[in-house]
Formats: sequence, C-alpha cells, structure tokens
Amino acid sequence: MSEAFASIWRRRVEEKLDELLPSASSWPSKLHGAIRHSVFAGGKRLRPVLALAAARACGGNLETILPAACGLEMIHTYSLIHDDLPALDNDDWRRGVPTCHKAFGEATAILAGDSLLTHGLGCFSRYPEGREFDAAKVRVVNSVVAAIGTQGMIGGQMEDLEAERDGAGADRGLKRLEMIHANKTGKLIRASLAVGGQLSFASDETLDLLDRYGEKLGLAFQIKDDLLDVESSREATGKETGKDIARGKMTFPGILGLEESKQFLAKTILEAHTLARTLEAGAGPLVELAEFVSARKS
Amino acid sequence: MSEAFASIWRRRVEEKLDELLPSASSWPSKLHGAIRHSVFAGGKRLRPVLALAAARACGGNLETILPAACGLEMIHTYSLIHDDLPALDNDDWRRGVPTCHKAFGEATAILAGDSLLTHGLGCFSRYPEGREFDAAKVRVVNSVVAAIGTQGMIGGQMEDLEAERDGAGADRGLKRLEMIHANKTGKLIRASLAVGGQLSFASDETLDLLDRYGEKLGLAFQIKDDLLDVESSREATGKETGKDIARGKMTFPGILGLEESKQFLAKTILEAHTLARTLEAGAGPLVELAEFVSARKS
Repeated sequence: MSEAFASIWRRRVEEKLDELLPSASSWPSKLHGAIRHSVFAGGKRLRPVLALAAARACGGNLETILPAACGLEMIHTYSLIHDDLPALDNDDWRRGVPTCHKAFGEATAILAGDSLLTHGLGCFSRYPEGREFDAAKVRVVNSVVAAIGTQGMIGGQMEDLEAERDGAGADRGLKRLEMIHANKTGKLIRASLAVGGQLSFASDETLDLLDRYGEKLGLAFQIKDDLLDVESSREATGKETGKDIARGKMTFPGILGLEESKQFLAKTILEAHTLARTLEAGAGPLVELAEFVSARKS
Repeated sequence: MSEAFASIWRRRVEEKLDELLPSASSWPSKLHGAIRHSVFAGGKRLRPVLALAAARACGGNLETILPAACGLEMIHTYSLIHDDLPALDNDDWRRGVPTCHKAFGEATAILAGDSLLTHGLGCFSRYPEGREFDAAKVRVVNSVVAAIGTQGMIGGQMEDLEAERDGAGADRGLKRLEMIHANKTGKLIRASLAVGGQLSFASDETLDLLDRYGEKLGLAFQIKDDLLDVESSREATGKETGKDIARGKMTFPGILGLEESKQFLAKTILEAHTLARTLEAGAGPLVELAEFVSARKS
C-alpha cells in the first residue's frame, strides 16, 4: 500500500518542486541553475513524504499541504550543499552527480545553499494560502527553525566536525554518536512529521505520538546510512562509500560492530512500527515508510 | 531629536540581541562564540533602527517590535559573514575585528552564517508574541524572504560577483550598478521599514510611502559606502578601504566621478527627506536617519 503512497507522492513532490523553484533561465540564472542541479539530482524525498504521511494519519488534505512539504526538501538540500563544501566534508559526489561546488564553483554553491534555506523557510509562511492557516504557519516556522538551528541540525553538524577533529583520544562513545545524529538528522525528520500534523490541525496528543515515531525513524535512518557506507558502493548509493572509516568518523558499525548494528536497526524499526500503529486511522503510510527506511539501498 | 532616537534604540537593539542570542557557553559553544563575535563587533544597527523608526511613524509600540527588529540585524550579519568568505569577497577585516572565518575557521563561519539566517527569520515567526500578530507575522516572513532571496539580496550578491568576473569588457554602466545595489542592499533596507510598518498595522498607503523612502535611503547608503571606500581609511571604517578599485569593482565614483557622486547622494537624500515628511506624525526619526546615512564616517 505505501509503496504506492511513497511513489505517488514522491512524484507529486518532484512536480511541485519544479513549480515552486524559479526557472534556470530567470535572473540570476547561474544561481537558479545551481539550485536546480542539486534539488533535481534525485533523492528519496523522505522528509516531504513523511510530512504527507503524517497529514494522512491526521486526516489532512495532502494537496493543500504539498507546497509546505516541499520546503522541507529545499532545507534538506541546502544542508547537503553546505555540508559537501571543501571547508566541511569536502565531498565530490552526491546523489550520483557532482556536488554543487564541483559543478558550479564554491561561491555559487554557498549562495545556492543560502537560497534554498531562505526559500525553504519561505514555503512555510506562504503555504497553504488562506487566513485560516496563519496560526498553524507561525507554529510550523517556529518548529522548523528550532529543528534546524544551532541546537538542532546546524549544532549536530558542528558537533560532527568537532568529533572528527578531536580524533581518537576524545569521547567516541555511543551516547555522543546518538546525540550528533539526533540533532544532525533526527530533528528535521521529527519536524517534517510536525509540519504535516500541525497543518492538519492535529491534537497535541497525536503530535506527540508522531514526534516519538519520528525519533525512532530518524535513528533507524542513520544506522542504515552507516551500514550502507560499509556494505554498499558508490554505484548503489550515488555518493562515495567507505569514507566514514577513512575519515575516522564515529559510526554505529564502528562502535557496535556490524551484527549488533543490524540488531539495533531492527529493534528501532519495530519501535517505530508500534508507535505508528497506535495512530488509529490512516497510519498505513507511516508503517510502510519505516519498512522503506530499513530496506533502502541508497 | 533623532540622534537621540538612533542612539537610544541602538542601545536597546544591542541589549535585546544579547538576550535573544544563545550564550557562548551553551552547546555548541564554538558556534555560539563565532555568532557573537560577528554580531557584537559593532555595526550601526541601521536595519533594526529603521524598523523601529518606521514603527514610530506608524504609531506602533517600539518595545513590542524590538525582538523582530533584531532579526533584521541577524540576517544582515549572516550576509556579511558569507560575503567575507574566501570563495566570495575574501575579506580579513570587518567592523574593526577579524572576519568570522579568520577568527574561527571557514567551516564554523559558514555554519555561523547559516545559523544567523535561520534564527533571524525565526525572530519574525516568534515575535511579537500573541495570536493577534499571527497574520502580520506571516506577512513579515513573506516580505523578508522575498527581499533576501534569489531575486533580492542573494541575487544582488551573485550579480556583483559575476560583474567582477566579467571584467572590463562587459556592461559596466550605471543601470547595472544600481540594479546590483537595489538587490544586494536596497531590498533588505526596504523590508526593514516594512517589518516596522506591518507589525504596527500600517495602511497600504503608508507602507507604500515607507517603501519609496527606503528605496531612496538604500541608494544613498550605497553611494556613501562607495565614497567612503575611496575617501576614508581602515581606521575610520573598520574594514579595508580602496579595495573596490583594486578589485575592479563597479562603484558610483568609478562611473560618475567623485563630484557627481556627491551630488547624486545629496539629491537622493533630499528625496528621502521629502518622502519622510509626507508621513504626518512621528516621522522625525526617519528624516534624521536620512541625515545620518549621508553624514556617517563608517
């Protein structure tokens, strides 16, 4: 069922992103070209699809929520563009194509990331249209800003860089690793569910359930990411693999070993399932997205 | 009168920024330290003071509007941090202290800029508190996002970089220069006035007047900036001077000559004055801020 949900809505997200982003022929065209290069290089569109699945579970209108959901993908893409820069992770490949700075130069990549952050947040204040959404939109911007700010996604990226530089002598335990990912990827995944729920006028109780589901899903996503880096190839994932070890990055397999990491993944996915099933109606897509996260190949 | 207005409110802006920004001892402390380094390096606080002057001219409550006004200074500081990066303008000094990447490294500077953009926009969705501001807050976020997006501040910066790279063969006329500055600095200055007006529930007619005043003030600000680069020193301005010529940047003195640029400045300030005086009550600070922009030494 949700294989269908994810693939139908992933296509609608692609179409809507194409509508929302300025054309590459409009001024400033090099910048717009760079933005489109990174946004349309593929990608699972996990965050907008999660927002839509949350909206479905809360009885929301998915077409109404779609433009705001696209804002989440813009923000995710901004974070990838900036993380890939030479001063940060210095990655040449992403989603199977050259990273933004490799294709367009560093200055343009920095500005393309800035643009996607700006217009991504702008999606939440613009959409859905209609005065009846004003209060929910204010709440959504607040949620996303908290999730991606210095004590959220940016803080997680900062801590990840520091941990890499600290080297072998410093704290390299499971707690620190979980804290890095809870901030770097977990909070935006949780905020994606909040966007779908808040714009569907969900109750606080339902929002809390969605948030706990998102916490498990985000953790599962990152364990799987680390496993793919060890066990997969650039052909399958679209980015360099084996880099975590080469860089001395902390990873789940590095700390727990391969087998225990797989068990941890299975346990976390089961917890996400259980939480999704607590939502009475329409939670099918959330159950199946948890499946997707654990089975994905890239 | 407005010497008093500007200096009183500049101090309140400093105090409120200190309250709004996380302390340098809170996690992630290096990032918070870098943010504070750049925000508290001095600066005229022109944009928040303009928002407050606009609020005064519209009968708004200035203390209520203050936190949102501070968001404008965070966004301005983000733009300075990113523009100063080696891949962009490669500046070592700003506001009399080393630029963010010189003091904290490039990775931290990129993330500090991202943080200030994020939390700056977040100020408009968080403040003023109270449901009665929800509609105005949505409007304010939309205005600021449009002003600083790809067809605003970021687009102006992109065009500025392209113009520099195009070199002597390309279009280097007054029209292109005015277009660059209208986007790079003009639109955020106009948005600052809009923030003050919109949060004071000003009429569309008043908002339109404020916008036309802002257009003149922004232009005057940039002509003066170019004149300072030619006629002043690092000691007075806190940043390297004479760099525009060294880089082959287009400037008003470069295109119009020194004398004609000064006349253009005087004419533009006069137009700003006239527009400010059209606002019946409380426009004193706006009149005097135009004076300040033309007389400033840094």
